[in-house]
Amino acid sequence: MGPYSIGVDLGGTNLRAAAVNETGKVLERVSVPANYDAGPLDVVTEIVGVIGKVRDRLPQGTLRGVGIGVPGFIDIDAGVVVGSSNLPGFNDFPVRDEIQKHLGIPIILENDANAAALGEKWIGAGQNVKDLILLTLGTGIGGGVITDGKILHGSQGMAGEFGHMTVFPDGNPCGCGNTGCLEKHASATAIAAMGRMMHFGQEINTAEDVFNLAQAGNERAHWVFDAMGRALGIALASLINAFNFPLYLLSGGPLPAWDFFAPSMLAEVRKRSFTFARTGTRIEKALLGADAGLLGAAYLPLQETLAREEVTR
Amino acid sequence: MGPYSIGVDLGGTNLRAAAVNETGKVLERVSVPANYDAGPLDVVTEIVGVIGKVRDRLPQGTLRGVGIGVPGFIDIDAGVVVGSSNLPGFNDFPVRDEIQKHLGIPIILENDANAAALGEKWIGAGQNVKDLILLTLGTGIGGGVITDGKILHGSQGMAGEFGHMTVFPDGNPCGCGNTGCLEKHASATAIAAMGRMMHFGQEINTAEDVFNLAQAGNERAHWVFDAMGRALGIALASLINAFNFPLYLLSGGPLPAWDFFAPSMLAEVRKRSFTFARTGTRIEKALLGADAGLLGAAYLPLQETLAREEVTR
Repeated sequence: MGPYSIGVDLGGTNLRAAAVNETGKVLERVSVPANYDAGPLDVVTEIVGVIGKVRDRLPQGTLRGVGIGVPGFIDIDAGVVVGSSNLPGFNDFPVRDEIQKHLGIPIILENDANAAALGEKWIGAGQNVKDLILLTLGTGIGGGVITDGKILHGSQGMAGEFGHMTVFPDGNPCGCGNTGCLEKHASATAIAAMGRMMHFGQEINTAEDVFNLAQAGNERAHWVFDAMGRALGIALASLINAFNFPLYLLSGGPLPAWDFFAPSMLAEVRKRSFTFARTGTRIEKALLGADAGLLGAAYLPLQETLAREEVTR
Repeated sequence: MGPYSIGVDLGGTNLRAAAVNETGKVLERVSVPANYDAGPLDVVTEIVGVIGKVRDRLPQGTLRGVGIGVPGFIDIDAGVVVGSSNLPGFNDFPVRDEIQKHLGIPIILENDANAAALGEKWIGAGQNVKDLILLTLGTGIGGGVITDGKILHGSQGMAGEFGHMTVFPDGNPCGCGNTGCLEKHASATAIAAMGRMMHFGQEINTAEDVFNLAQAGNERAHWVFDAMGRALGIALASLINAFNFPLYLLSGGPLPAWDFFAPSMLAEVRKRSFTFARTGTRIEKALLGADAGLLGAAYLPLQETLAREEVTR
C-alpha cells in the first residue's frame, strides 16, 4: 500500500477519522460518539484510539501524518486550541503534542471550517481553482479562505469569520455584541428563527421545518428563504469585491433549499458587485458535505509533500 | 552605483517617475503634467521620455526594471489595461510591450492602489508585517491587499475593490448600480456631498472645506466625519472578520481629518468585529502619501530579486 494520511474531525455529535491516500481516496473510516465533556486527556485517548482503529484495519503503509479539524480557534504553531465553545477545558491544553507523544508521527491541528475549505479545494468543488472561499451555513456561519492552494490563516487563524460580517448595520443583535451579523440573518438558526415569526400554525424547530413548508408551496416559507438569500448575497458581494476570487462555495444544512434562496442571493450579488457581473465569478454548492473537514484535515500532512512533487515534476 | 529600479505613476494630474535603490532610497525623480487624452502611443512616448530623463540624471548602474502604476484594471500577464476611466483608448492596447520595445528592460504593469499597498509594505507603515490591507480614500475608495508580502490579485486583478462593499444595504445609490457602497458614504466625494446637505451657509466644494469647518468647531461638520467614520468602521470590521490581518491602513485626502472620523470608526469596528476586540489588530494612517504608488511600482521589479536574496541569506 502506498503512502496515506489520516484526517480526524471533532464534530459536534461524532468523532470521526478517515485514512486517505494521495489521490484523495478514502481507504478506511471510523466514527464514534463524541464526548468532549470528558476533558482533554480523555478526549486525546479517544482520538488516539480512533486513529489506532483506522490503522489496524489497513495493511502496512507509510502514514505521512494526521490532520485534525477542530471547531474553534487554533494557534497553529503552538498546536493548541485557543478558544472553542464545543471543547470545554481544551483552552491552552497542548492537544497536538499530547497526541504526537502517543503516536510519534506529525500531527497538524486546524480549524474545521478551514479544513473543509481545503478539502473542497483538494477533491471537491474547488479542484480547478487555486483561490476559493467556503461559507459553512449551520448553527452559525463559518468558513475558510484558500489562496494559492493554501489556507489563509491571518494573524491568529481567525480569517474566514464570515458569520460576523455586518450585512444590516441595524439588524438583529448577535451574541458577539454586534447587530446585523450575517449569521443572525442567514444561518440555519436564523432560518428557524424567522420561521417561528411567520405564524405557520405549526411548531418550527429547525430550518428543515421551514424548508418542508417551502417545498409544500407555503408562500411565507418562501419569504424566509428570500430574506436569507438577500443577506447572503450582501455578504458575498462584499467578499467578491474584496477578494476577486473565481469561486465561492456554500455548504451546510440549508443547502437543499438552494432553489429557494439562490435567486434572491444572486440578484443581490449582481446588484452589489460589478466584479461578479463582469467576470466569470462562480457561486456554487460545495460537494463534499460533512466529509469536507475530514478530508481537508487528511490533506494537511500530504500538502507539502504533494506540492514538492509538483515543483519537481 | 548599485542596482536600482524605476517606478512610474500615471496619476490624474501628473505623470511621475522615480529611481529607487534596493533599500528604498529615492535617487532621482521627474514629474511632468499628464496628458492621457493624447492617446496611448503618445502617452507611451511620454513615459519612455520620463524614464529616459531619470536615467540620464543618474551615473551608470544596473537598472533592474520598471514598474508602472496604472489607475484601472490591468491584465497583469498580458501587460494591458483592461479598463480605466482615466486612460481613454488604452483598453487592450499593449502598453507593456510597447514600452519594453523602446527600453529593452523588464516592465511590470500594476494597478496603482495595489502598487501603493505594496509600497507601504516595503518602506511605509507596513514594514513589520507580511499581511496588510490599504484603503485609499479619494474621489472613490480603492485599495490593495498584501498577503505574505505580495499583492493579492484575485482572478482578474480586481481584488481590493473596497469602495463598492455594501455598508448600508439601502444607502446612497452608486454609479455601479448598487446602493450603500462604502465610497458613497466615506470617500472625499461623499464627505463633500454630505457637507453640501448641512446648510453651512457657505459653499462646499471639497472635503477640505468640511474639514476646515470641523477644525473651526462647527458641530455639523463633526457630524459629517462621524457618519463617514461609521461607514468606514462597518467595512473595516467585515474586512477584519474575513482576513484577520494584523494591519489596515488608510490613505488619501481625508487623512488629516483622522481625529474627527477615527473615534466613530473605531467604535463601529470594536462593536462589529470580535477579532479586532480580542487581538492586536491595528488600523493606522499610511505613511507614504502620494508617493506610495510610485515607490510600490519601483519595488515590483526588485521584489523577486530581494526575495531570492532573503532566502539565500
